[in-house]
Amino acid sequence: MENAKAPLPCDILVTAAVVVTQNDAREVLRDAAVAISDGRVAAVGPRAQLTAAYAPAETLDLGEAMVLPGLINSHGHAAMTLFRGLCDDETLSVWLSQHIWPAEGKLTAEAVRQGTLLACAEMLASGTTCFLDAYFYNAAAAAAAEAAGIRAVICQGVFDMESAGFKSADASLAEGAALAEQLAGHDRLRAAVFPHAVYTCRRDTLERCAALARDRSLLLSTHAAETARENDDCLNANGKRVIPYLQELGMLSPRTLLAHGVALDEADIALLAASGTAVSHCPKSNMKLASGIAPVQALRQAGVTVGLGTDGPASNNALNLFSEMAFAALLQKVGTGDPTALEAGAVLDMATRDGAAALGWPELGRLTPGAPADLCALDLTRPALRPGLDPVSDAVYAASGGEVVLTMVAGRVLYRDGAFLTFDYEKLRRDAADTAARLTGR
Amino acid sequence: MENAKAPLPCDILVTAAVVVTQNDAREVLRDAAVAISDGRVAAVGPRAQLTAAYAPAETLDLGEAMVLPGLINSHGHAAMTLFRGLCDDETLSVWLSQHIWPAEGKLTAEAVRQGTLLACAEMLASGTTCFLDAYFYNAAAAAAAEAAGIRAVICQGVFDMESAGFKSADASLAEGAALAEQLAGHDRLRAAVFPHAVYTCRRDTLERCAALARDRSLLLSTHAAETARENDDCLNANGKRVIPYLQELGMLSPRTLLAHGVALDEADIALLAASGTAVSHCPKSNMKLASGIAPVQALRQAGVTVGLGTDGPASNNALNLFSEMAFAALLQKVGTGDPTALEAGAVLDMATRDGAAALGWPELGRLTPGAPADLCALDLTRPALRPGLDPVSDAVYAASGGEVVLTMVAGRVLYRDGAFLTFDYEKLRRDAADTAARLTGR
Ligand SMILES: [Zn+2]
Ligand SMILES: [Zn+2]
Repeated sequence: MENAKAPLPCDILVTAAVVVTQNDAREVLRDAAVAISDGRVAAVGPRAQLTAAYAPAETLDLGEAMVLPGLINSHGHAAMTLFRGLCDDETLSVWLSQHIWPAEGKLTAEAVRQGTLLACAEMLASGTTCFLDAYFYNAAAAAAAEAAGIRAVICQGVFDMESAGFKSADASLAEGAALAEQLAGHDRLRAAVFPHAVYTCRRDTLERCAALARDRSLLLSTHAAETARENDDCLNANGKRVIPYLQELGMLSPRTLLAHGVALDEADIALLAASGTAVSHCPKSNMKLASGIAPVQALRQAGVTVGLGTDGPASNNALNLFSEMAFAALLQKVGTGDPTALEAGAVLDMATRDGAAALGWPELGRLTPGAPADLCALDLTRPALRPGLDPVSDAVYAASGGEVVLTMVAGRVLYRDGAFLTFDYEKLRRDAADTAARLTGR
Repeated sequence: MENAKAPLPCDILVTAAVVVTQNDAREVLRDAAVAISDGRVAAVGPRAQLTAAYAPAETLDLGEAMVLPGLINSHGHAAMTLFRGLCDDETLSVWLSQHIWPAEGKLTAEAVRQGTLLACAEMLASGTTCFLDAYFYNAAAAAAAEAAGIRAVICQGVFDMESAGFKSADASLAEGAALAEQLAGHDRLRAAVFPHAVYTCRRDTLERCAALARDRSLLLSTHAAETARENDDCLNANGKRVIPYLQELGMLSPRTLLAHGVALDEADIALLAASGTAVSHCPKSNMKLASGIAPVQALRQAGVTVGLGTDGPASNNALNLFSEMAFAALLQKVGTGDPTALEAGAVLDMATRDGAAALGWPELGRLTPGAPADLCALDLTRPALRPGLDPVSDAVYAASGGEVVLTMVAGRVLYRDGAFLTFDYEKLRRDAADTAARLTGR
């Protein structure tokens, strides 16, 4: 035809029955396609249109599948997969002091690499393409994420605790600076600073963490207001509730992400909103530890960015954001007494766009031109996703995560039809079982 | 060897890395086997022992799998799969009057058969082997369960509502009697009577339902105390809260199963315990509709048998008891403020043995000699189930249900590795999508 343009080259053309774009208009396209070049989305649109416009090097026809932006896990401790099932149904103090800390005392860099890679496997198999990790031996954690090909924010943890064999704050802060150097300019890995909590870090340590994050333009994240008791203790120790205390220390900012945010009052929420501080909501962890119900609805209404997190697999016990989305929505409904609270679309935002913004990586979490090509696909032929009247509802309320058939990060397929394409999963799962047995004595 | 006995014949020998027996001692066996004959468990024990003792016609070596009793869904409305995603995040009255009732008005027997069979597919794929169904066109529902080969308690629903096109109570009670005749002596299907609720059935209708159940030795089930408002309304209309009112009508008994039981006070719980009445706990439905948090811990402590139910897939939106187990445990912990509440083993009991007892079918829900050979198997090589320190914890807290690789009812494999072996699933899912589109106008 006279006015036909020559087709554009692209690396991959993904086609599928449904594409949930999570663009600004939240378009859900039927019979659609995503064109990918150089690890980024080149175009999203009707299949017929993109098939005509592009001459892809490779076509990935996913058939009756729902493509979504890869999910974003904004809080966790990945290598704790090694301790999954070690201790459940206990109080936090028994869980920590009698089970987790003794096992963590035996951790090695290699154990953390294995545990983190196992976590990457679990997350990829359930559609997560980016996660925040706050744990020990972060060079090993970064190596695992690198090997898997997944995207990650690797945090340097900082404590002031003598008892549990943690490094000194000085050593940790130096490691944090080194991590930032090491990961500078990396396409998929970023460094961050993670003082554990106000009750495990001294005032000056918290201030130094904030300064390091500021100096290096890193995300600053910490556990905050996980329980009402944490506020009481902070009030006793520092004369302020947790959120005002963090403000006093200069820790609230648009580059700060607070994990949990359960025990927040109106003034706390106003401080978070005014400072642009984000929250990572971890509903399953909060429920399992009986911490309480975070005021997610109130936070969102106040304009606070709220992402979704799994927390560690020893207090969840999964790293599955499809499950986490359902828990977030349903918990908020029963918690507020309002069945219209936190609708499916809002929860999907939390697991994608808002989680991306919370991590300070706002180009993630959406399938729009120029965005990194991070996506997952659900098999729509599975009975739980039939008849398919509302894709977003099905993704949030009906999917178990077991329907994920493909996960891609930066244009590279990392998981497909049960297989992990970037590392030897069979070897990993045997090694990790041996390591877990050694660490836990089981 | 001199004292070697001749091996016993059996139909199938299932071998697996882990067998969770749910016997009285709650034994979890490693490297174990289940011998099956005539649709029932012949023996459960160490693999070496059973391999020596039995000469099976067929060996099913599941390898690195966890075998569990098939899960039991003690409350639901199966064919509402057709309405999954039709309306979410709305109040019950909007959901019912503007969306569900108009769509239900167009139901046909064939639609119910398709919707129920789709539900059977979803349940089998997530390890459920027995379900209670309370909906319309129960001959069609029974036909679907028969075709799938699954076990089911098919209820005759009874209403006194003119507006929504329901049958009269007289006609429904006659149908209930006919259903009982039809299913008498069936190995896998049983009939039951299900007056919808105290607010949709007149006093005499409820009494007649109780009498029919008594006369025919059928389970009597109804929705009860789902919300605080239901108690208020019942107090206004009948001078009593729901549970005392049901007692007055002679409806509380060891053969009665109440769905929901959210709004219960101490006196209500005492009445349930004293009468031997069971409760089906539906945590996801209760959360999604913001009904409240059922006092499961208090019910169990009072000696009330509590099973687990999904409720309908239009208010959940899944029929996945692995997900439901996690919700039940975590909801109870956050609801009571006690992380030790409703531990993993208790929740697994609810989804197996206790659900069986709640349905009046106590030989189900355990893998013990003589029990029906209803079981499911989880693939332990999946990352979410690694490292496998505690199988029961992993089944309750870590499994998504997507790890199910085999489901067997009465010694017959109905689902394996994604395939449905008893019916044409490909045709079903297309037909059901067409039917759903027709009923909902989507
Ligand atoms: Zn944490
Ligand atoms: Zn119901």
